[in-house]
Amino acid sequence: MSEELVGNCLVAQSGGPTTVINASVAGVVSEALNNPCIEEVYGGINGVLGILKEELIDLAEESQQNIRGLRFTPASALGTCRFKLKREQDYERILEVFEAHNIRYFFYCGGNDSQDTADKISKLAQKKNYELRVIGVPKTIDNDLVTTDHCPGYGSVVKYICTVIRECALDHEAMGQHDLVSIMEVMGRNAGWIAAGATLAKGKDNAKDAPHIILLPEVPFSKDKFIEDVRDVLKKNKYCLVVVGEGLLDKDGNYVANSTSSQDAFGHQQLGGVGDFLASLVEQNLAVKARSSKLGIGQRAAAQCSSQTDNDEAFMAGGAAVKAAVAGETDKMVILVRSEGENYECETSLAPLSEIANGVKEIPADWISEDGISMTAKFIKYCQPLIQGEVEVPYDNGVPAYVRLSKRRVRKVLDSHDFE
Amino acid sequence: MSEELVGNCLVAQSGGPTTVINASVAGVVSEALNNPCIEEVYGGINGVLGILKEELIDLAEESQQNIRGLRFTPASALGTCRFKLKREQDYERILEVFEAHNIRYFFYCGGNDSQDTADKISKLAQKKNYELRVIGVPKTIDNDLVTTDHCPGYGSVVKYICTVIRECALDHEAMGQHDLVSIMEVMGRNAGWIAAGATLAKGKDNAKDAPHIILLPEVPFSKDKFIEDVRDVLKKNKYCLVVVGEGLLDKDGNYVANSTSSQDAFGHQQLGGVGDFLASLVEQNLAVKARSSKLGIGQRAAAQCSSQTDNDEAFMAGGAAVKAAVAGETDKMVILVRSEGENYECETSLAPLSEIANGVKEIPADWISEDGISMTAKFIKYCQPLIQGEVEVPYDNGVPAYVRLSKRRVRKVLDSHDFE
Repeated sequence: MSEELVGNCLVAQSGGPTTVINASVAGVVSEALNNPCIEEVYGGINGVLGILKEELIDLAEESQQNIRGLRFTPASALGTCRFKLKREQDYERILEVFEAHNIRYFFYCGGNDSQDTADKISKLAQKKNYELRVIGVPKTIDNDLVTTDHCPGYGSVVKYICTVIRECALDHEAMGQHDLVSIMEVMGRNAGWIAAGATLAKGKDNAKDAPHIILLPEVPFSKDKFIEDVRDVLKKNKYCLVVVGEGLLDKDGNYVANSTSSQDAFGHQQLGGVGDFLASLVEQNLAVKARSSKLGIGQRAAAQCSSQTDNDEAFMAGGAAVKAAVAGETDKMVILVRSEGENYECETSLAPLSEIANGVKEIPADWISEDGISMTAKFIKYCQPLIQGEVEVPYDNGVPAYVRLSKRRVRKVLDSHDFE
Repeated sequence: MSEELVGNCLVAQSGGPTTVINASVAGVVSEALNNPCIEEVYGGINGVLGILKEELIDLAEESQQNIRGLRFTPASALGTCRFKLKREQDYERILEVFEAHNIRYFFYCGGNDSQDTADKISKLAQKKNYELRVIGVPKTIDNDLVTTDHCPGYGSVVKYICTVIRECALDHEAMGQHDLVSIMEVMGRNAGWIAAGATLAKGKDNAKDAPHIILLPEVPFSKDKFIEDVRDVLKKNKYCLVVVGEGLLDKDGNYVANSTSSQDAFGHQQLGGVGDFLASLVEQNLAVKARSSKLGIGQRAAAQCSSQTDNDEAFMAGGAAVKAAVAGETDKMVILVRSEGENYECETSLAPLSEIANGVKEIPADWISEDGISMTAKFIKYCQPLIQGEVEVPYDNGVPAYVRLSKRRVRKVLDSHDFE
């Protein structure tokens, strides 16, 4: 046990929301309150953006219902951002805010860009001899962080997509018409983890179940093979349900559908439109009707259809971050570790922030079937446990009773900072 | 009590599926089995299409789990169709099938086109002196059938859309960015009932809650007013969430977005694309980012997010149809009647099929606010009770355990019929 560090803690959220990132904040807050060395429990508004602006809230002032409500409330209750810290003076400003409010523990929930930011903040603190412990909490529906078995947020989006596929499949089956091609575009950027997870919508031993074709960014798209694959499915089925990851690439590594050239602050291309593209491809090449749907941001916010396993692990990751920091750890991210046994069990451990910041976890090649459009038993074994259990969302007057924090602001003590 | 009519019954489903049309079939089957005058309980595959082909199944052979499972399984378990009977010989074929299988009770779950078909079958039976009792079971998410207070299927689609709006609204709020316009296109054809229902996503006394603008086909669309309305919302809010009914019309009664000219068998135009249209309109006229989403057929299949009230009423309507027919009624559709009191209560009654076939129920003018983009308290009072209660869907291995009927076919006794 390292020397006790007494001071305040700050938790913030970054990047695209998920259904369980608030559960991680609840985990941080609950565990922080157990540790006397942590005096005040603050939240940063809109990630580093709010910290730059010295916009902090007092999380210990929130009602217990509110903190409990975070367990089932989607999106980022503290607010989030896609703002990238670029200038040295911005990093220094962050430290200045930390110092002014005696922040000694910083917990940042986010993906690899966010963990990179956390890492740089920590390095600067070390350089300046400001004692600070920084622990990342993993978050991304894309499931592409290295070192962790999987990412909180992933299981829930897969569960939601599988539910929608089952429901839409029943609808397609019910219609008298034949030869419908239904394309469902899902998130995941350059990684096919989410699209791959759709395979869990299939029943046991039922090869005819939807989805019939899964298109992953990991498998270069060939128009001719796709048309052939659709034709094959329609020989055996009344309809063909295709799931496609938004970042589908051709053999040269270019986006198959690049309807827009807009980029976010991290230089990621804003993707979309591949579903529509495939639908017109089908209609042009086969005498069948094609429809596309794009689940959009609803898929990362569908808390009423989220995974209890995912939710529990997100909460556990938040708590583990606090425990690690109090025990003297810093510059690490909490990771999820799957036990070796036959039955699924999951524990937390730690990995260096720098490692997470610079890696992207890919789907192992032997988890994708040789046909390039379905997943092997290895993938199913990996993914199946992550969608188990249903989060019970309370309802009020017929709609989910999600909570909003009361967000009592911490008084600013610094001059404002010109950060743009 | 009229003379007892002994024979078999047939139930079939028609038109677009809903989350509760199977609950109506479960209601028919459960009640049919209570009445000794009903000997066999048959289901027609794909509505009139299957009856023409003499494709009947024996519903009494289904397991009890299967019939219970219909209570929470979306889409049309018997299969459905949009096939329109046009020729005299097709109507005669239907009667021939009925006669061959001693069908004396016919229950047809569907909207106004389906009730029109049921009415014509009944009239032909009377002409031919074939004793047949025909009772319609109301079904449509569009909520546009006359004489009934509301339609089974409507409450569930509204509950689902309100849930998605709450979830997406939290996601929009969480983002650091300002000035996002989010457009959500919903079903409903020429009626705005579904779009109107989205108003229930707003919290009590919270005018700032989404949706901020509701565009109904009942209110002629003006581009200039729309841009002004969006601008007004963005003065007060970080984002503006717009819900639009797919059948939005301009002042001349033309579809605002008519991206396709395809029509279904009843001559209804297949709608879609108004969300994308509005998004580009916003981006062209205001310096803001606009996104559109189209919930698609998922909205009529989202059983895991459906209304218990709606489900109970759909089941009740199925049972009421059987009771009415056994009591000697025919040529009627079951309707839902709301009691006069302060507390919501709903009973069934009957209305003539011919009346339903020829009418379309419109939203009363004073249920739409004067601003043309929101609903009055009268609408809220009407709609609020319909989304109460949550259907509990059982899960298997992380995904909803919806049922498929085993569909044991009734042996054909007739020659095949050339129906097209």
